[in-house]
Amino acid sequence: MSGMYRNILEVNTNGEGEIVDLSRQVQDAVTASGIREGMVHVFVTGSTVAVTTIEYEKGVLKDLKRALSVLAPDAIPYAHDSAWGDGNGRSHVKASLVGPDLTIPVTSGEAMLGTWQQVVLLELDVRAQRTRTVVLTVSGE
Amino acid sequence: MSGMYRNILEVNTNGEGEIVDLSRQVQDAVTASGIREGMVHVFVTGSTVAVTTIEYEKGVLKDLKRALSVLAPDAIPYAHDSAWGDGNGRSHVKASLVGPDLTIPVTSGEAMLGTWQQVVLLELDVRAQRTRTVVLTVSGE
Amino acid sequence: MSGMYRNILEVNTNGEGEIVDLSRQVQDAVTASGIREGMVHVFVTGSTVAVTTIEYEKGVLKDLKRALSVLAPDAIPYAHDSAWGDGNGRSHVKASLVGPDLTIPVTSGEAMLGTWQQVVLLELDVRAQRTRTVVLTVSGE
Repeated sequence: MSGMYRNILEVNTNGEGEIVDLSRQVQDAVTASGIREGMVHVFVTGSTVAVTTIEYEKGVLKDLKRALSVLAPDAIPYAHDSAWGDGNGRSHVKASLVGPDLTIPVTSGEAMLGTWQQVVLLELDVRAQRTRTVVLTVSGE
Repeated sequence: MSGMYRNILEVNTNGEGEIVDLSRQVQDAVTASGIREGMVHVFVTGSTVAVTTIEYEKGVLKDLKRALSVLAPDAIPYAHDSAWGDGNGRSHVKASLVGPDLTIPVTSGEAMLGTWQQVVLLELDVRAQRTRTVVLTVSGE
Repeated sequence: MSGMYRNILEVNTNGEGEIVDLSRQVQDAVTASGIREGMVHVFVTGSTVAVTTIEYEKGVLKDLKRALSVLAPDAIPYAHDSAWGDGNGRSHVKASLVGPDLTIPVTSGEAMLGTWQQVVLLELDVRAQRTRTVVLTVSGE
């Protein structure tokens, strides 16, 4: 691959469990890059936030939150909270299991997502408001 | 990296819980690319299907399905199903947590997988038959 | 992207549940590559080991282990163990769900991790000692 284009987004979130659809921003970066064949990589910095794909539909988003709470319930003690008292032990656990990155192929200048497959950021921290940094990197020709 | 090669597979699946070993197709794409040093990226389109690595052994595959059912059991109500009635709420949740992509390094023209580490597609949807699109991208020199 | 640099690490681990911070080695590979703008990819070979990011803090690491044991408890029977008798059925399941790879953007010669976001290897196998192979690939300019 011969070229690389990068765009860094600042994404404001409004509390634990918010799920932000980044699909348009991902496609905008691909379009702005002028790259027709290659890849687009999505990365979020931080340890209480994650990136994945999902159908961006209210019911599914609710179901996903329930599933994450099986792994890291609200009502159990966390060793992290005992040590640091910031109350976001569950946020760290969920973020680590979902992961911070995703790579999507690009063809004819389009990210090759399915029709019902959106790129999403999961805000998992307990603070009321955060600004998240998302690094988009498009590479190819 | 100076070159890129792409191969798109159509993979037929036969129902929820089928796990398809894609290791041979991944290696075939690497070989066909002529690329000796680089990466191979695997991506599946859709929101009820996922890609990961696992030992492709009957027992492990059964154990993986049990673990996914802890996150998204068959017998609970899903908000997605209430809204859409397609009965695949659990499929979406599992797919989102496992994720749709994977990148494997390539050296001397070989994908650097462990001996017991196979690349697999997880069919998570409830339909009896689906055709899945897997995008393989090899980059490097 | 026009260049690629690879470094292969051998990492010794000391039993199930060990979590190894690889952040320094990842940054060292980026620095050694001379690449200023691009990506660094981390991959671990094997089917009972995984890679992710997390805050490398004793409490969080303990919380992560508890969460993984919800998915794959110690005290249940595994089909893999019945077939093979090696007692690491739970290791395979956890490894497959967390995944073996991670890609991090690089800018100005630095991996773009958050302050509290470390790259970690999760040793999930039940053997007392293992040596793990981690493949680091830096690409870019």
